[in-house]
Amino acid sequence: MNMTNSHLTQISRHSDDYVSINLGERSYNIWIHTFEESSWSDKVQLPLGTSALIVTNTVVGGLYLEKLVNRLKQFYPTVYSVTLPNGEEFKDSQTLNLIYDALLSNGCDRKSVLFALGGGVVGDMTGFAAATYMRGVQFVQVPTTLLAQVDSSVGGKTAINHPLGKNMIGAFHQPQLVVCDLSTLATLPLRELRSGLSEVLKYGPIADMEFMEWLEISVDQLLSLDPVALAHCVRRSCEIKASVVSQDERESGLRAILNFGHTFGHAIEAGMGYGVWLHGEGVAAGMVMAAELSRRLGMVDAAFVQRLTQLIERVGLPTKGPVLDAADNASRYLELMRVDKKSEAGEIRFVLIDGPGKAVLRTAPDALVREVIDICCA
Amino acid sequence: MNMTNSHLTQISRHSDDYVSINLGERSYNIWIHTFEESSWSDKVQLPLGTSALIVTNTVVGGLYLEKLVNRLKQFYPTVYSVTLPNGEEFKDSQTLNLIYDALLSNGCDRKSVLFALGGGVVGDMTGFAAATYMRGVQFVQVPTTLLAQVDSSVGGKTAINHPLGKNMIGAFHQPQLVVCDLSTLATLPLRELRSGLSEVLKYGPIADMEFMEWLEISVDQLLSLDPVALAHCVRRSCEIKASVVSQDERESGLRAILNFGHTFGHAIEAGMGYGVWLHGEGVAAGMVMAAELSRRLGMVDAAFVQRLTQLIERVGLPTKGPVLDAADNASRYLELMRVDKKSEAGEIRFVLIDGPGKAVLRTAPDALVREVIDICCA
Repeated sequence: MNMTNSHLTQISRHSDDYVSINLGERSYNIWIHTFEESSWSDKVQLPLGTSALIVTNTVVGGLYLEKLVNRLKQFYPTVYSVTLPNGEEFKDSQTLNLIYDALLSNGCDRKSVLFALGGGVVGDMTGFAAATYMRGVQFVQVPTTLLAQVDSSVGGKTAINHPLGKNMIGAFHQPQLVVCDLSTLATLPLRELRSGLSEVLKYGPIADMEFMEWLEISVDQLLSLDPVALAHCVRRSCEIKASVVSQDERESGLRAILNFGHTFGHAIEAGMGYGVWLHGEGVAAGMVMAAELSRRLGMVDAAFVQRLTQLIERVGLPTKGPVLDAADNASRYLELMRVDKKSEAGEIRFVLIDGPGKAVLRTAPDALVREVIDICCA
Repeated sequence: MNMTNSHLTQISRHSDDYVSINLGERSYNIWIHTFEESSWSDKVQLPLGTSALIVTNTVVGGLYLEKLVNRLKQFYPTVYSVTLPNGEEFKDSQTLNLIYDALLSNGCDRKSVLFALGGGVVGDMTGFAAATYMRGVQFVQVPTTLLAQVDSSVGGKTAINHPLGKNMIGAFHQPQLVVCDLSTLATLPLRELRSGLSEVLKYGPIADMEFMEWLEISVDQLLSLDPVALAHCVRRSCEIKASVVSQDERESGLRAILNFGHTFGHAIEAGMGYGVWLHGEGVAAGMVMAAELSRRLGMVDAAFVQRLTQLIERVGLPTKGPVLDAADNASRYLELMRVDKKSEAGEIRFVLIDGPGKAVLRTAPDALVREVIDICCA
């Protein structure tokens, strides 16, 4: 973590930057910037509202809540906050109720605006609360992790987990604005930075091999939080995600390619118990498995699988999945994957690489999937 | 309850009838008919799906579940069901979880179709489960109470209650079809039939004074379940609701007029504890209060208030609200009404009658509202 304030000031002067998500009347901007030295009032269009409620967690709240409260006081008559326990294991209906309780006990109404200050868990839960409180209120994402900045805060997917499956209860609900503050990455634990890079890496194989080349060159700079590299990384990731989401907001087809590595990854997360493996760690091992499955189906060559595996390794992410069941590991993976949301009538639909830079959604023979699991777990 | 099977067979021959809700790509039909003697296959377009899950409650399930299962087996490879406890007091997140549990443990996927077999509580909860399971699946309303047939099953409002307010957690999610089977009204307790008529009565004052005249003539036939009168009552109610909802699906304005009597009514329901007063009972007393408030604001005359009160009385519904707090009843009502979803920044917005047949949404001075509460409670 060697991002200094002088670095950040430098970005704030040069990197204020917008990416637009075009979704008709639900269009919005992603604002990539740093908090430091910059005033929001002349740069950012916040939704109007009768009050604001900031949702954060114990860790992020300690670092950034006061700062955000002070900023929002310029824009809203009253600013409330609620602090959730930190961690994927709390992304459940019980914790969601803490948000509803805060909204109702503070008398928040249909014109109140929710702010999600935190990572993917806070963003997903706040978004789902906004989707369902009084049948829908406005919300703003203020992602403080790389994973949330490059992926989960963009695109309107909101959800909580159920004991039987990840993100099973949710809604599509677009934010009015996403504010990516790169300076918050300075306080992000290295393990979470790596996990976030996992979601960055996926954009290469599925959509943009030039970006993959750039990542191969820039991986060390990203890990040392070079501000120029980070700004490009976040912007390009958001651009690719914005392009895909604009074409298929509700995931009737194309959008599913953003889940490259996630079918195996979700099985890993669920099988290990939520929070044991980070989301990006499961996705990393899952991408290797999905690439290997693509190879066995004749869609990519061994060199591509190796190249992706090496890049994942350089980021410091796992390239092998865990053994979830010593007796019959492949069956356990298959069982968990059948409840994936992309499954239909128990048929698992994998995001596979159909030549570098292009993804497709398709099924695969169980026997082949078992071989891949056997080889890719340790 | 004197509706005989021979009556019903007669309706089934003559009263198969559709009302359309025009909402662009979310348009759907309300099919008003009787189960008896009629086959669904050639008359009804059910959404395609990999499986069906019927949600019902202990009371309705005992009467109609087996029949619906058998019908749906013609259309879906697998038909599951889940039976909830009966009553408004179970319209909460805990009971909602029973639906999610059934969906997940049966391996239901994005192409599964939910069926709500029951009254407003079952419909609202099933609709909300459909809105949020895997971020949205299809559902069909099969309302078995008059209240659900004329109001709650139509229009896509779904919700559960929160200890601090009714229907506070919800979503707009339109069904693919509504199947109103008039024969189910034969098993409806009289108190619930009356409660359902409360939602029928509201359509007169807010939109159609001819319908109010017809109701004044037909109230006894409706209470004795005359099939021709019931068919007209359900059809005309659905037509008015469809027209309003088509103009304002997400309640940004006009649609709120459908909540005539509901602001006071929700306060009564919440103040007494959910389930003590039926929804339609609260709405009935609430309509008298809202009419009286309209009169004091010079919008209708005393004769209109008296006429509405008499009709409510003839249906056998309460025309006075309960005393919620012997020490300061008006303050308790106001406190409860401020958390109504139509409130903004603590200002209560009432649906008032601006001349018979026309409703408006507006605020009123607290002092005047207190007078109305004092006079209209006993």
